[in-house]
Amino acid sequence: MSERLTGRTGRRPGVSGAKEAILEAARGAFAERGYERATIRVVAATAGVDPALVHHYFGNKRGLFVAAMNLPVNPAQIIEGLVAANETDTLGERTLRTMLTVWDDEVRRAPLVAMIRAAMSDDQAATMIKEFMTAEILAQLVRAAGSDRPDLRTTLLASQILGLMIVRYVLRLEPLASADIDTVVETVAPNFQRYLTGDL
Amino acid sequence: MSERLTGRTGRRPGVSGAKEAILEAARGAFAERGYERATIRVVAATAGVDPALVHHYFGNKRGLFVAAMNLPVNPAQIIEGLVAANETDTLGERTLRTMLTVWDDEVRRAPLVAMIRAAMSDDQAATMIKEFMTAEILAQLVRAAGSDRPDLRTTLLASQILGLMIVRYVLRLEPLASADIDTVVETVAPNFQRYLTGDL
Repeated sequence: MSERLTGRTGRRPGVSGAKEAILEAARGAFAERGYERATIRVVAATAGVDPALVHHYFGNKRGLFVAAMNLPVNPAQIIEGLVAANETDTLGERTLRTMLTVWDDEVRRAPLVAMIRAAMSDDQAATMIKEFMTAEILAQLVRAAGSDRPDLRTTLLASQILGLMIVRYVLRLEPLASADIDTVVETVAPNFQRYLTGDL
Repeated sequence: MSERLTGRTGRRPGVSGAKEAILEAARGAFAERGYERATIRVVAATAGVDPALVHHYFGNKRGLFVAAMNLPVNPAQIIEGLVAANETDTLGERTLRTMLTVWDDEVRRAPLVAMIRAAMSDDQAATMIKEFMTAEILAQLVRAAGSDRPDLRTTLLASQILGLMIVRYVLRLEPLASADIDTVVETVAPNFQRYLTGDL
């Protein structure tokens, strides 16, 4: 890694150090400024690196956003894992547990919560929700499950997922806000699974 | 009705005319200004009546809000109708249909949608959601159904209801946004019912 890329003249961080610094800066920027105003230039400045390094690691802002949210850079990969051979019956439970494990970490969920907040009044943020949560994640799960009425199922899943995030993390309605992951999975997964594969 | 109360010197509207004018003004004020800044004084001025008349009909701002949202002034009344003798099995379906019938009317849902939007970043609005949607409506449904774990069920119901409202009316994700009420009831009611009375 050259000094031009790191933008530092002192001790140079390792690759993983610089990457982590960028992701941390990105999480803060997306949460505080929203998607549109969180520029790569701002993120790079906060992380103390050259913007070129951000582009080098993450391609564009979308790639940076996906990485900062702890979504897999290639969502198809995690979905492949989730839809493993003939386990469609537990797909809802496993997906929900995976999501909750990420989101129960305040730092990891911060940009997504910021997006949801912004999406209530901002079309750009609403488009991000559609692009990431709906099109990239939920639609691919539904497609993998092979159910009928995939588009309707995708939006039904979005309704449960968004509502769960809002009640648990934004409005913090008790006891759902403080319930442990097992309790949430046990109570919500059957509903999630019905939207995925059940009779509608 | 005295001129002092209507605040008009011309033709005096009938009781129902003045009431409707106040409700219409209230819906606009709550939607545009949010709960906190929509004062009874502003609503009265818009409706062309004296603030005393607003107090006379609706008591306080909370009463006005409930009426403007087309919630029953006494939510216990509509809940009583919904939980009619031994029809707990269809309680989810009937409740959902009642809610959707109100909310599919853009004017009638406007203040509630405004509340939901505001609740994402405003504690006062979040409290309104808790007080009205959760405590006044959903908790009483759950209590009437007589199920175990009532508090958890109430927040699970809130997660589905808020998510449905957001996907259908705020983000307008298709095809759920344009689906007719029957389709939404058929697809969502079983999940709603499970949160109300099913095994968790």
